[in-house]
Amino acid sequence: MAAIKVHGVPFSTATMRVLAVLHEKDLEFELVPVNMAAGEHKKEPFLSLNPFGQVPAFEDDDVKMFESRAITQYLVHTYKDQGTELLFAERKKMAEMSVWQEVEAQKFDPVASKLCFQLFFKRTLGMGEPDEAAVAELQESLGKVLDVYEARLTGSKYMSGDQFGIADLHHQPVVHYLVGTPAKAVFESRPNVSRWVADILARPAWAKVLAMQNSS
Amino acid sequence: MAAIKVHGVPFSTATMRVLAVLHEKDLEFELVPVNMAAGEHKKEPFLSLNPFGQVPAFEDDDVKMFESRAITQYLVHTYKDQGTELLFAERKKMAEMSVWQEVEAQKFDPVASKLCFQLFFKRTLGMGEPDEAAVAELQESLGKVLDVYEARLTGSKYMSGDQFGIADLHHQPVVHYLVGTPAKAVFESRPNVSRWVADILARPAWAKVLAMQNSS
Ligand SMILES: N[C@@H](CCC(=O)N[C@@H](CS)C(=O)NCC(=O)O)C(=O)O
Ligand SMILES: N[C@@H](CCC(=O)N[C@@H](CS)C(=O)NCC(=O)O)C(=O)O
Repeated sequence: MAAIKVHGVPFSTATMRVLAVLHEKDLEFELVPVNMAAGEHKKEPFLSLNPFGQVPAFEDDDVKMFESRAITQYLVHTYKDQGTELLFAERKKMAEMSVWQEVEAQKFDPVASKLCFQLFFKRTLGMGEPDEAAVAELQESLGKVLDVYEARLTGSKYMSGDQFGIADLHHQPVVHYLVGTPAKAVFESRPNVSRWVADILARPAWAKVLAMQNSS
Repeated sequence: MAAIKVHGVPFSTATMRVLAVLHEKDLEFELVPVNMAAGEHKKEPFLSLNPFGQVPAFEDDDVKMFESRAITQYLVHTYKDQGTELLFAERKKMAEMSVWQEVEAQKFDPVASKLCFQLFFKRTLGMGEPDEAAVAELQESLGKVLDVYEARLTGSKYMSGDQFGIADLHHQPVVHYLVGTPAKAVFESRPNVSRWVADILARPAWAKVLAMQNSS
């Protein structure tokens, strides 16, 4: 029995963010499925793991957590010497990493997650067709964020420098879904963003996350 | 001349978040005013400091940053042995701190900042009266978040345990403005939240942030 448990589903972007770090770090863990269709995440015992009733929730022995980005932060610190190095201790590199981590959370995700819901999850969950006006507006907003990314990635291989890091990783799930929709064009029209997308989605650890979707 | 520079305005919540850490850490710094009314934040040279055109931007010698929560993260790490201890290295404490930092950013701020705009900044900036329907909806959402806080703060003095930390600090600016509006009731109706609000707003470092508003 693994000491690390992720309570979630392998199709949820927030769950995938945690799974991606676990695979990068080569850590053993157990994915404990949550029956979201049955509303398990809105009832006990799940609410004791996350009072906001969302996946993922996480356990590492006596450490219990929720919020995907808090969990990844914990993992890169606690298991810093294992698997891919994702923690940059040098002052300037750490500063850059923090900036682009926040950009993902504050600028990219609020727009990209909504677009992902419209273009991917709505149909998948049988919730109807995308709202075209909302999609157009979101794509425009996403384009503005990606203009900043394009400039950033012109001089830099990854968001936070020459090494793949947690700021890049946090983008993987939503980018993965979006490039399977018409929003792909927003990424592809920007050459450096396009190169970066191909790079981060080609990582072996990411392939392992996707494989978990097929086996579930 | 101080090596640390904050480009911003002392009324901006994101700027205040950074000023609060600087005062807790007893660091010398210079606040470089940005003339937002004249749109200075949307032009060069400011855009080179933050391509998203928002305050604050930050410099510490050769380190240049933006995004308030990235800057606070950098400061608590880089100056960990100075002023108030805001970095918890112990695994379990660090995990709790990360969770509640993310809760502030993901759950509290998106709702509370919008409410703050409606109830405080709109009038202050001469942008008209609050939209009452939006206010009612936001207050209800804020109440749901604060229900989780109330439960959390029943067993815990601060968001992340028995010590004031960065997760508490990140709340100070928006809480400060909101308790000066009718939304005060949403906090006051929850006794542990109310006790926590009084505590975090009574900190000497916070008084120094507010003093900067009066002298500007
Ligand atoms: N900020 C949270 C977001 C978690 C989240 O939105 N989870 C979704 C699945 S990706 C969920 O549980 N949705 C169901 C719901 O909100 O009721 C995180 O990063 O962990
Ligand atoms: N997520 C950013 C938010 C920055 C932000 O919203 N700044 C506001 C002032 S508090 C601003 O510059 N607003 C002007 C604008 O967005 O054009 C941070 O935490 O630094």
